[in-house]
Amino acid sequence: MRALVRDPAKERDSAPGDGVLTTDIAAIRDDPAIGVVAELMGGIDPARAHVLGLLAAGKPVVTANKQLVAQHGAELFAAAAHAGVQLRFEASVCAAIPVIKVLREALVVTNVHRVLGIVNGTTNFILTEMESGATFSEALAEAQRLGYAEADPTDDVSGADAGAKMAILATVAFGSRVTLADVDVQGVEGVTPLHVAAARELEMVVRLVGSATLVDERLDVRVRPAFVDRHHPLAAVEGAFNAVMLQGDAIREITLEGPGAGGIETASAVVADMVSVIGTAANGFLQNDACWRELEALPPGALRSPYYVHLEVDDRPGVLADVARRLAEHDVSVARLVQVPAAVGAVLHIVVHEAAESAVEGALAEIAELSNVHAPPFLVPVVSDRGVAELGWA
Amino acid sequence: MRALVRDPAKERDSAPGDGVLTTDIAAIRDDPAIGVVAELMGGIDPARAHVLGLLAAGKPVVTANKQLVAQHGAELFAAAAHAGVQLRFEASVCAAIPVIKVLREALVVTNVHRVLGIVNGTTNFILTEMESGATFSEALAEAQRLGYAEADPTDDVSGADAGAKMAILATVAFGSRVTLADVDVQGVEGVTPLHVAAARELEMVVRLVGSATLVDERLDVRVRPAFVDRHHPLAAVEGAFNAVMLQGDAIREITLEGPGAGGIETASAVVADMVSVIGTAANGFLQNDACWRELEALPPGALRSPYYVHLEVDDRPGVLADVARRLAEHDVSVARLVQVPAAVGAVLHIVVHEAAESAVEGALAEIAELSNVHAPPFLVPVVSDRGVAELGWA
Repeated sequence: MRALVRDPAKERDSAPGDGVLTTDIAAIRDDPAIGVVAELMGGIDPARAHVLGLLAAGKPVVTANKQLVAQHGAELFAAAAHAGVQLRFEASVCAAIPVIKVLREALVVTNVHRVLGIVNGTTNFILTEMESGATFSEALAEAQRLGYAEADPTDDVSGADAGAKMAILATVAFGSRVTLADVDVQGVEGVTPLHVAAARELEMVVRLVGSATLVDERLDVRVRPAFVDRHHPLAAVEGAFNAVMLQGDAIREITLEGPGAGGIETASAVVADMVSVIGTAANGFLQNDACWRELEALPPGALRSPYYVHLEVDDRPGVLADVARRLAEHDVSVARLVQVPAAVGAVLHIVVHEAAESAVEGALAEIAELSNVHAPPFLVPVVSDRGVAELGWA
Repeated sequence: MRALVRDPAKERDSAPGDGVLTTDIAAIRDDPAIGVVAELMGGIDPARAHVLGLLAAGKPVVTANKQLVAQHGAELFAAAAHAGVQLRFEASVCAAIPVIKVLREALVVTNVHRVLGIVNGTTNFILTEMESGATFSEALAEAQRLGYAEADPTDDVSGADAGAKMAILATVAFGSRVTLADVDVQGVEGVTPLHVAAARELEMVVRLVGSATLVDERLDVRVRPAFVDRHHPLAAVEGAFNAVMLQGDAIREITLEGPGAGGIETASAVVADMVSVIGTAANGFLQNDACWRELEALPPGALRSPYYVHLEVDDRPGVLADVARRLAEHDVSVARLVQVPAAVGAVLHIVVHEAAESAVEGALAEIAELSNVHAPPFLVPVVSDRGVAELGWA
């Protein structure tokens, strides 16, 4: 294993072994023991020359370099084909979201005719913040404070970053070369709080949407701020997340959503590509059973979750206190408890903080025995990324 | 190419070639010209015996048989490993949503510790219908009318179908065998309109959620009706769609959403698996450039879309008529036009039906010249699965 670096003497989080670091690309390119190389340096020069040299020397290459693939893909893939080695680039688009693999391998027999994407997390974060009342510049400042946006955010805000990703996605989806220069890009600079408010009135949200569309065997690739219906899968993409929706004849639409950036996320995609290179170099590991260990089952009732409990009760003093006491005795902590009059008696809506199912069930078994409780309790886990105490209640 | 059928004389949509249909599995198993076999017969017997026989004879097999994999996976994968051939099963879970490939190949270096899924379209359709006011039995009848539910809907409604899928997903995610018998299943029979209303009050929706969780190296696999926060990606899964969310250390969370059933969708996954078998049998096609044709670019402005237009105008008689006339002259059809008083003058919110961007821009260029129009118009495409005339306006 070798790693090309500018300065081998620089302090690093984990110390590499002796002889791993080198400043000479030839030490990697000409080492017969190296079977695959990951390019993570970014930029066009010298990355382009290095990748071309590696491919020519018969080394498969995995790259996370979006601009390199979007601007010089034709040259690079020709070099790979000529040398008979693989060039993979999953990490160049949306980090760990495996949209390249899905397009190339899973949807290989589907005619994908449209790709819609939220492929820039910085602008999606800004637009989501604006929904909460921030101005554009306040939201941008917050994105910079959190490290989502660079000190110079031009590439994100102008749509150039999204444009490069859409060029790569369109190329793979349609099998026809699209470069960054072919993408018609408009950024989010013109979006104001008024527009965001208008979207809300229409039950929509503002998103920066990349689209690649095949119309009568011609293609259109663009990036635009758009109003997205709240019921559309892309409207659910909040904060710095990314999503790509693939529309095709056989699949209707498949959406992939996840974090579109980040060091460890990108590394995950790079290593998966390296494994794919090795796994497809021969009749490899993919044929093997997925099982390699034997885990025990968690005991029934032990899984922890927040829960919602629906109780039908008599509308009499003391019921609520009785119920609350039984929950407390089983160490079940109440987040919300609302009593609402019903046709007969009342309904108790209870949301409890994370607890073992067995604890909640134990409390409910006692509660069901109370003379003031009618129907058997209704119990469901709550799935939410928010703390349950923050959930709304009209 | 050969196909095993019960009755070769049966009328079929497309006539197979001479000698393709056979009633004898040996005619497929012992034909050296056949390189890969797809099992689409369903059920356990005789599918299990046929797949075991094919694997033993050295034929790679691709299967869409969920119950076969969930109940007899250990035996089948042992046979495949023994024979040194591949057994792929993407179509057995969520049809064309490539969650098996993503788990096994793209997230191969990520420790996935939780899988959350809406993996049964029938119950998701029923629950979505109940949000619109239907009772459980009305929603079930509608699902049957539309062909989403069988005449006997027990497997769907009871959670057994979702349980088998979660068994397969947990096995692949955690690398430890989970069979249908290991999954703790609860169906949607107990969900009433009252519960659905309560979810709404809490800004949540009711969904049948499968979960597979790794807790301290132990696993829990279950299927439950759950309340899902409206801001959670799974809440956005409506109608007969499926979604699977994968949570892991490096990837945070990746969600895949799409149609989870259907003949052509399942066929897409089956053929993709067959291609993967061939593509990984040697140093195959995956190394090739994705480009195989050269498509022209659609002319700028030609892409059709619905649009939203935001205009700041004088609050005087005639402005609205002037604007509407310019749009009509460019063949741009108005779906909604709302005038709202502003601090200075008024704002016109305009939603137009699908039109070429150049047509809308042409109309706006003239509108911007009107003496009653202040700021330059703001124009964005509308992304929605609904007709724009149905969008809300508070």
